[in-house]
Amino acid sequence: MKIDILTLFPQMFDGVLNSSILKKAQDKGAVEYGVTDFRNYAANKHYKVDDYPYGGGAGMVLAAQPLFDAVEALTEEAETTNPRIILMCPQGERLTQRKLEELAEEDHLIFVCGHYEGYDERIREYLVTDEISIGDYVLTGGELASMVVIDGVTRLLPEVLGNQESALKDSHSSGMLEHPHYTRPADFRGMQVPDILLSGHHEKIERWRYLQSLKRTYERRPDLIDFESLSEEEQQYLKDSSGK
Amino acid sequence: MKIDILTLFPQMFDGVLNSSILKKAQDKGAVEYGVTDFRNYAANKHYKVDDYPYGGGAGMVLAAQPLFDAVEALTEEAETTNPRIILMCPQGERLTQRKLEELAEEDHLIFVCGHYEGYDERIREYLVTDEISIGDYVLTGGELASMVVIDGVTRLLPEVLGNQESALKDSHSSGMLEHPHYTRPADFRGMQVPDILLSGHHEKIERWRYLQSLKRTYERRPDLIDFESLSEEEQQYLKDSSGK
Repeated sequence: MKIDILTLFPQMFDGVLNSSILKKAQDKGAVEYGVTDFRNYAANKHYKVDDYPYGGGAGMVLAAQPLFDAVEALTEEAETTNPRIILMCPQGERLTQRKLEELAEEDHLIFVCGHYEGYDERIREYLVTDEISIGDYVLTGGELASMVVIDGVTRLLPEVLGNQESALKDSHSSGMLEHPHYTRPADFRGMQVPDILLSGHHEKIERWRYLQSLKRTYERRPDLIDFESLSEEEQQYLKDSSGK
Repeated sequence: MKIDILTLFPQMFDGVLNSSILKKAQDKGAVEYGVTDFRNYAANKHYKVDDYPYGGGAGMVLAAQPLFDAVEALTEEAETTNPRIILMCPQGERLTQRKLEELAEEDHLIFVCGHYEGYDERIREYLVTDEISIGDYVLTGGELASMVVIDGVTRLLPEVLGNQESALKDSHSSGMLEHPHYTRPADFRGMQVPDILLSGHHEKIERWRYLQSLKRTYERRPDLIDFESLSEEEQQYLKDSSGK
């Protein structure tokens, strides 16, 4: 997979793209990242990429020309057809694990990252294929948001995760939150590991973990639970343990 | 404000913390960032920070000792009392703008970033004050998630944003999505700016922008709209423009 990033702050990306799983994914040839300063595509002698808004008002607006030209150049260079062109913005579709899985099937992603400015509406209407928001909060720019998507997509590519990294059941990929984990020592400053985990009863341990996972999900994210699929015993357990 | 980050991948942070608004905030003295590899706090000769889970199963679990000791050392060093100790994890409370505003009032934040491993439950129970998730998707570690929170908090600190950066009404800080923006040229490859924005009628432009903002919010995020607060004319406008 080719992943291109268009940004005015290319130096933000080095540390993230060259660490941990994202570095491993490149070393294995599963992905190639390209970070491009789209100021280089501004067709004016001052390399200006923004301008005042039509209709007045404060703030600046990113112009269409540099981004249209940059996307076209990257598409031609990668020799890909129909790349997904992704605008990171608060108005976008909320990111989900399903969306990451969908993007992980593509050959070429181009991320468009603005930075505390508006986008000329023609970029949204005629250039990008997806507008994505990572959540309902205000960030300085699209850079961190695009890194979040890139990390989430890259770890889904075939052969990127080793056994160790993928072994733990991740919250949100299984539909329930994780059960508690404990490791040595059994007593840390007087804080104890639950006896059951030291018992050696594998079946009971599995059941305990399942119920803990269910309980935590019920307490923190009841929206993730399909109550009708639970046994009567499980429903009773949730009522008893939560005091509701 | 002091912001400390505990991570096994300190090199991920340099580019982000030293660019754009986060760099400006440091230069102005509004915030001081510290990135600490908590492996340095492992009290064993191999600097081991994780171990096998009690009760069996695949994957590794971050041990309590290095994180407890690191948090205590950073708290002492900063001479702060009651820092917020924030664990970035998918089971956490979902990040909101309100949460960022709350954190921006603090003197000292300590972020705990794990990386494709579980946390010993005693870290959650007895060490951290907040568990935060940036959204329902799986990331490799807490590093990017903590950067998102740090960016969102830092830009709220007094005197960090200049007029230019804060001038545009941000989506989610106003409760509605932004209206479309346009800048020059009025005709880009045949794609036109709406006439109204070239008309010079400021009052009509404001009204158009308000209705566009309302329409976009209605189409993309109806959950953000309080319908009862809308005038009959506005309700009618939404019905007409959406074809619903």
